Amino acid sequence: MTDPIRVAIAGHGNLGRGVEAAILHNPDMRLVGIYTRRPAEQISPRRPDTPVFAIAELAGHADRIDVLILCGGSKEDLPQQGPEYAALFNTVDSFDTHARIPDYFAAVDAPARANRKTALISAGWDPGMFSINRALGEALLPDGETHTFWGDGLSQGHSDAVRRIPGVAGAVQYTRPVPAAMEQARSGSRRMLTTREKHQRECFVVLQEGADAEQVRDTIVRMPHYFADYDTTVNFISAEELARDHAAMVHGGFVIRSGNTTAGTAQTIEYSLKLESNPEFTASVLVAYARAAYRLHCMGQYGAKTVFDVPPGLLSPKSAEQLRAEQL
Amino acid sequence: MTDPIRVAIAGHGNLGRGVEAAILHNPDMRLVGIYTRRPAEQISPRRPDTPVFAIAELAGHADRIDVLILCGGSKEDLPQQGPEYAALFNTVDSFDTHARIPDYFAAVDAPARANRKTALISAGWDPGMFSINRALGEALLPDGETHTFWGDGLSQGHSDAVRRIPGVAGAVQYTRPVPAAMEQARSGSRRMLTTREKHQRECFVVLQEGADAEQVRDTIVRMPHYFADYDTTVNFISAEELARDHAAMVHGGFVIRSGNTTAGTAQTIEYSLKLESNPEFTASVLVAYARAAYRLHCMGQYGAKTVFDVPPGLLSPKSAEQLRAEQL
Repeated sequence: MTDPIRVAIAGHGNLGRGVEAAILHNPDMRLVGIYTRRPAEQISPRRPDTPVFAIAELAGHADRIDVLILCGGSKEDLPQQGPEYAALFNTVDSFDTHARIPDYFAAVDAPARANRKTALISAGWDPGMFSINRALGEALLPDGETHTFWGDGLSQGHSDAVRRIPGVAGAVQYTRPVPAAMEQARSGSRRMLTTREKHQRECFVVLQEGADAEQVRDTIVRMPHYFADYDTTVNFISAEELARDHAAMVHGGFVIRSGNTTAGTAQTIEYSLKLESNPEFTASVLVAYARAAYRLHCMGQYGAKTVFDVPPGLLSPKSAEQLRAEQL
Repeated sequence: MTDPIRVAIAGHGNLGRGVEAAILHNPDMRLVGIYTRRPAEQISPRRPDTPVFAIAELAGHADRIDVLILCGGSKEDLPQQGPEYAALFNTVDSFDTHARIPDYFAAVDAPARANRKTALISAGWDPGMFSINRALGEALLPDGETHTFWGDGLSQGHSDAVRRIPGVAGAVQYTRPVPAAMEQARSGSRRMLTTREKHQRECFVVLQEGADAEQVRDTIVRMPHYFADYDTTVNFISAEELARDHAAMVHGGFVIRSGNTTAGTAQTIEYSLKLESNPEFTASVLVAYARAAYRLHCMGQYGAKTVFDVPPGLLSPKSAEQLRAEQL
């Protein structure tokens, strides 16, 4: 029995709390600290014996931590924390601004290499599991098309946009795949579908007293970029219903690759996720990749890495022999 | 532009013909030879300029071939060919006798290591893509259950068993997942399902003249091991219908992992394949892994490998930079 992998968490929002929960399911890991910007006394760890530190203490704790899981956001936190901590720790993060991944990779790669650390970036489900399925789908069926669908899922950005409308007291917005578009993707039809053709939007809105429902509905469905080009449904509900039925951060989606191996012979690969908690699932992916990042580091593979660089077996607590015997 | 990877095929049955087709979709590869036990003049390559050799010539062609794809069967061919050719070539195969994989791995590993070759065994979809999804599902959701379903698929072994019954002139058998069992797996119910609860069997039978349909049906549905414990349907059709509607080697299946990240929070991962040609899809997987095996060899990673050892990015013809920019 080898020593458990010593894992620490930087940031204790929804994602950090999910990582805490995920580590409890992985007996080969030990949570050695939660590092936070908030006053330590405001943090209630899931296990009361988990130490809580100010994030400023991290730099002094390099010898206590095998892998640091960065649980901050992609907009404000990771562009600064990623490169900074990759110089000191093996790290894992869920950087998810797709267009900026090449720059972020380069910014993390240099300090990690210089300090012989392994930094696994952009793990989660998209980017992450969906990326693997997009790359594998294309590699296995080069003559084909890939369709990614998101949902049914709560979209934070669209929910916020609705909440800012005058007369709205509360709201959530769900993105849902259009069933007919999914059937088309599965059928092997090679027509490309736009994001707008593939998704519809459904809002659940609590009105302020005296607000005009039809005016609110109209403002939503005509909102440019967010709703105007989509098939959008608006439902009005009570504050009690909003709290009771729409608090969970559900999400998920589909990656469908359909292609031909010979003329007239269609093959379809489909990967899908149905998540009752988006942050808890992302956290579970981060924890499995923390194991892999630590193993890559032990093998001398330094620098920034992505899910494309990680052999699947390294994510499992099982040995290669065990995996071959039990799961191949 | 680097030189194309020089790929050769050992064995020219359904799988070997599928590999031929798959290589045509991969411009970074070149098919340098088909090696067969049959007289060369009986082979019609898809491209007339593809050289055909007697399999006995393989040993003398080691310097012409970067990767040899073994397209023989797991019962008779691979136990002998796998170790023999792994001493001379980088190899890829689809060895699929699950219970014997550890022994086969050891038998291939020793000669490959001794001769600094890379031998990727048991690639395909099960073992192969399904194995990856079983291992990842368990790693991402340790508190959960995995269910593998096969079908709708033509089963060669069960079709043969029906064909041996007196009075049967021709037959095919399809294995199909039981819809209610699939819904249960997706629902996150943690009850284990047996293979028998998960699958039903459907036979399409052509009777010999004068055969007693009810007696044939009875013999099928009571056949021990093959049918007796399953919900089995028998349909009688004409020889013309058999030839017209049941010639395709369709197959596929599902790997469903459902688990909890915290109490009461269910997460479901589902991977599925719908294949109009089982051998052509398996061949496509072999060809993508041929690329990966060659790259592993170039990186100095010798010995037997499985899909668990291969970073997903190595399967793609795209560079790591390109994958990060386009598919992450």
